[in-house]
Amino acid sequence: MNSYIKRGRVFIENVRPQVDCGRYRVKAVVGDDVRVTADILRDGPDLLQAAIRYRGPSDRRWNEAALTHAGNDVWEGSFSPGEIGRFRYTIEAWTDHFATWRSYLVKRVEAGQVVDLELAEGAGLIEARLPSVPAAHRPVLSAAATAMRGGAAMRGEGDGGTETGGGPAVDARVAAALNPEVAVLMTRHSDRSGAARLTPALELTVDRERARFGSWYELFPRSTGTKIKHGTFRTAVKLLPDIARMGFDVLYIPPIHPIGVTFRKGRNNALKAGPDDVGVPWAIGSKDGGHKDVHPSLGTLQDFDYFVAEAGKLGLEVALDFAVNCSPDHPWVTEHPEWFSHRPDGSIKYAENPPKKYQDIYPINFDTQDKAGLWTELLAILQHWVDHGVTLFRVDNPHTKAFRFWEWAIEEIQRDRPDVLFLAEAFTRPKVMKLLAKLGFTQSYTYFTWRNHKQELTDYLTELSTTDMAEYFRPNFFVNTQDILHEYLQHGGPPAFKVRLVLAAMLSPTYGVYSGYELYERAPREPGSEEYLHSEKYELRPRDFSTPGNLRPYMTRINTIRAKHPALTRLTNLHFHHVDKEHLMAFSKSLPGSDSIVVVINLNPFTSEEGTVDLDLDVLGLSEHRPYEMHDLIGDTTYVWSGRRNYVRLDPQAEPAHVFRVGS
Amino acid sequence: MNSYIKRGRVFIENVRPQVDCGRYRVKAVVGDDVRVTADILRDGPDLLQAAIRYRGPSDRRWNEAALTHAGNDVWEGSFSPGEIGRFRYTIEAWTDHFATWRSYLVKRVEAGQVVDLELAEGAGLIEARLPSVPAAHRPVLSAAATAMRGGAAMRGEGDGGTETGGGPAVDARVAAALNPEVAVLMTRHSDRSGAARLTPALELTVDRERARFGSWYELFPRSTGTKIKHGTFRTAVKLLPDIARMGFDVLYIPPIHPIGVTFRKGRNNALKAGPDDVGVPWAIGSKDGGHKDVHPSLGTLQDFDYFVAEAGKLGLEVALDFAVNCSPDHPWVTEHPEWFSHRPDGSIKYAENPPKKYQDIYPINFDTQDKAGLWTELLAILQHWVDHGVTLFRVDNPHTKAFRFWEWAIEEIQRDRPDVLFLAEAFTRPKVMKLLAKLGFTQSYTYFTWRNHKQELTDYLTELSTTDMAEYFRPNFFVNTQDILHEYLQHGGPPAFKVRLVLAAMLSPTYGVYSGYELYERAPREPGSEEYLHSEKYELRPRDFSTPGNLRPYMTRINTIRAKHPALTRLTNLHFHHVDKEHLMAFSKSLPGSDSIVVVINLNPFTSEEGTVDLDLDVLGLSEHRPYEMHDLIGDTTYVWSGRRNYVRLDPQAEPAHVFRVGS
Repeated sequence: MNSYIKRGRVFIENVRPQVDCGRYRVKAVVGDDVRVTADILRDGPDLLQAAIRYRGPSDRRWNEAALTHAGNDVWEGSFSPGEIGRFRYTIEAWTDHFATWRSYLVKRVEAGQVVDLELAEGAGLIEARLPSVPAAHRPVLSAAATAMRGGAAMRGEGDGGTETGGGPAVDARVAAALNPEVAVLMTRHSDRSGAARLTPALELTVDRERARFGSWYELFPRSTGTKIKHGTFRTAVKLLPDIARMGFDVLYIPPIHPIGVTFRKGRNNALKAGPDDVGVPWAIGSKDGGHKDVHPSLGTLQDFDYFVAEAGKLGLEVALDFAVNCSPDHPWVTEHPEWFSHRPDGSIKYAENPPKKYQDIYPINFDTQDKAGLWTELLAILQHWVDHGVTLFRVDNPHTKAFRFWEWAIEEIQRDRPDVLFLAEAFTRPKVMKLLAKLGFTQSYTYFTWRNHKQELTDYLTELSTTDMAEYFRPNFFVNTQDILHEYLQHGGPPAFKVRLVLAAMLSPTYGVYSGYELYERAPREPGSEEYLHSEKYELRPRDFSTPGNLRPYMTRINTIRAKHPALTRLTNLHFHHVDKEHLMAFSKSLPGSDSIVVVINLNPFTSEEGTVDLDLDVLGLSEHRPYEMHDLIGDTTYVWSGRRNYVRLDPQAEPAHVFRVGS
Repeated sequence: MNSYIKRGRVFIENVRPQVDCGRYRVKAVVGDDVRVTADILRDGPDLLQAAIRYRGPSDRRWNEAALTHAGNDVWEGSFSPGEIGRFRYTIEAWTDHFATWRSYLVKRVEAGQVVDLELAEGAGLIEARLPSVPAAHRPVLSAAATAMRGGAAMRGEGDGGTETGGGPAVDARVAAALNPEVAVLMTRHSDRSGAARLTPALELTVDRERARFGSWYELFPRSTGTKIKHGTFRTAVKLLPDIARMGFDVLYIPPIHPIGVTFRKGRNNALKAGPDDVGVPWAIGSKDGGHKDVHPSLGTLQDFDYFVAEAGKLGLEVALDFAVNCSPDHPWVTEHPEWFSHRPDGSIKYAENPPKKYQDIYPINFDTQDKAGLWTELLAILQHWVDHGVTLFRVDNPHTKAFRFWEWAIEEIQRDRPDVLFLAEAFTRPKVMKLLAKLGFTQSYTYFTWRNHKQELTDYLTELSTTDMAEYFRPNFFVNTQDILHEYLQHGGPPAFKVRLVLAAMLSPTYGVYSGYELYERAPREPGSEEYLHSEKYELRPRDFSTPGNLRPYMTRINTIRAKHPALTRLTNLHFHHVDKEHLMAFSKSLPGSDSIVVVINLNPFTSEEGTVDLDLDVLGLSEHRPYEMHDLIGDTTYVWSGRRNYVRLDPQAEPAHVFRVGS
């Protein structure tokens, strides 16, 4: 009972942001204004004070930021994390006895009541706090207390009080009590001995900007040679300047390790490989080594270092693929057979999705008796590549590996290297994708690829940007991947490629493009398939990026717009606006101190569409009564719009989208 | 790392019901079907099993109830608590390796694959579980395993398999593997060694039915004498048969303790009492004693015991008022001055809401240095009255006393006496009212009194019945109290009294009436006031309940309807139906195994209203194509309705409401 009693009279409830009762960390980016709200309650009418307390990895003590009462017992405030790493934050709330007393005094004085005893009580409150107040402030408070008790007068600012007889009149005593400086000092140094505090503190992962905002480009280095000559890191380096010039920030490369030969797949996923077939990069491991090694045909580890360094000089970060599975030729098959599952005849189980068999892949058995050995080695692989300059990992199919491994491994890496980021390549059940993000993945692949209609896109983006997913799930919108060529692109031709690029780049702070997109590559392996014909997964696919009419200038323009308009670096500022046509969609992003961007897009790649955009002017800070300029950043044209409703017409053959900077 | 690894591969998330991450208890009633849902996830495609585990106060071990997969990784199930008291419940979930293996076997067999190794693997799974299976079931499993390995054949039900050569054919081995009995046994006895479990368990307060469903009647026993002669428990007993006959379950009586004389209030809240004024029952304490004593004018403690016993014989429970404050004459003022706040001159602080003063009341100081002594004595008071047969407390203004005291005291009382229930009389800020309910109050007063329009009522009831409030906050809808005579009643006359009675009794499982309602008492102290003229708080107010035309028969009818229709015992089954008029409202309650009730009511007490009710037929289990009977239980009339839309006309002077039992 006694320990319970001591917990005081204030309750802190419903603290936001918070993911699953604090079980998982909220995500933010360094410099963000992290807005915190809570319900703070106590019995009776006494006035409260509350503060956010937060602490970054290099803070020696807790910092405080103000919380203020926003009505209905909700308190709100914010803090701005100034470094990357894991932050803790909590809330402290306490009764402000002096402020309560002061508010009552005002009411009593207004009602003309005798307040002698109240003044003496207030003086007592001040005197009780004196030992806890810095020496410099004590004289002001002491003088006030003395004056309130009717001792030597102290004058309130701009307010006198008439002295009568031997002591000051009540007016002067009240003025001393209500001196604003006293109120400020008493609030600043109020007694927190009965304070409530949210325990345990909540946690926040503070990442660098790239965790939220970036333009990704995927490239197979081996395709930078010729049709028959395997590309290398050194030939790949030659493509980097163009990729950087297009405005990309991240270069994602599939696994670079030795590839197995046993059950190697041939071109177009043939069950048997020909002698010249290069194999699938995700079938990792051969006599040349495993996950810490480089495929000899790509070069050496030193060549990889050179590649990473050259990319870095151009402002390109290299994102390496991390695929936790092995070819039958991986060194672990003999060194660590216990890390695999075995069939009754002692053979190692290959990957299956019964009745389908994937005999070129041995999945790792996370239920192995040697979990500690396995986890440690997997972590060592990540650390190995971090030591070679990798700061981003694209993790292959994390949803088929033990979830707890990811939580542990990401935490282990980020403890010393909070700048290292992880992208989850999972296109699985929605709740699994959310869980992976909660467990620590910095970014996530999404269902964007399969959201092509206006309602689908609106619903999905509303979920991503307005539900509690926004606290922990950061989307990376890929317009295509080596595994997904959506039929919208197959059939829609170049206008479809523009549409999906604009959508990805404008809706999501992070988006990605897989090589060949700029050439409108869109032939499926067979009708109805989302696989590419002559997929680069199975063969070399050098490309000629100098073909006329390709999408490179358009990509460059889109990335330039992204770089110049900070509103596009965020997700939760997304707002959809009504358009009266099924295929026309409009949305905007605004950010204080930045231009607003409004996108109007025709989702129909075949036909011109016209309609009326109904802008929520309030969201854009525009007036119903004043015309405003809309600068199309793609066409470099300026339109003058007025009021909510304005006509648009978009011909996909010419230009399927307006990307407007909103003028005034 | 090692302890983390051991936590296994299954995740349990988003468990419902749950109040504030399990910080507070969910509420239910004995015999309820408590529906539990959770997101249950693991990596990969393996099949899961999950169960609710729950444990009541007299259970020696945990019980289990099934959870089944409802799609999208959501699992659902329910359990039914069979006793009152505190229950714990949690969820356990694990991988079902045999079911996973079996589902793959089916696919492999369908695809015509060779399954020898798979059959051996399955046999191994069975054999590994044999030691954990009750002896009676082992032969079936052993035989299956043997057959699967190609030993002595075991026949699947209705399926043979051709024996060839020395052993059974694959068909027979497969049939043995797919034997449904084997599947059932392997699931029932599956390996839970890697099970995930929600910890700590969640908690559930299981109350008796009266916690949710009941009809309250408030009576001042002192008004059961004459205008000048103080009523007693023995005169009050004479009114009990009529109250019971009206169908009420609970008799709430204001404080019965000695009343202070210092600063005693006079009639109509006069600052000075006359010599004959009886004082306010909430100004507790005099030379005759304090909270454990009975006002001498009401009788003795033995008289109170007699009153409680007589009420009990009539099926009426007595709810006693618990008001934690004192008159200046309370024994504690001299015995425990440290339990009060003091002014600088040493005098005890009276109650104030500056600039208003309430000098007849000394509030308790919950910040006293002797918290333990104070809390212990307050608990002893509750225990004292429990020992005298009180099983319900109506707690006066709990929001002005330390919240933690309530949490502690309710828990202390209910540990031994879980049948004792607490009603919070708080009409304060919404989040404070919610917190009191979370902290343990069984029931709560509400804002119902001030919700008189259709939209207000719909919004408020939607909040109460569909948000997470429904898990912990049980409304008690009082149509009036000794403190609140709403202007709707003041102006609306008898029809208004019927309207509010029907709304309270049909919308909320628990509702209450304060004495005099049946006589349409509606004179305010002054225009604009919600106080009664000649309020019973300050004077004796004997009543003649035999006046013709009073509301007693109507109340009796309403309570009879409530008693006969179990759908009215619940809140979360409330459903509003559209009516095309502002003053006409329609709602229904349904419960499996009970008739549905549909209420159509005219909220305008002055004028007839007609309109079209648009019933959600699905909710009522009715067909668009078949007429159905609507039996009006107030007017004893049957209407035949058909389809969704039906005409109604309600004249408030005749009958402002239809309360229909839905026929078929």
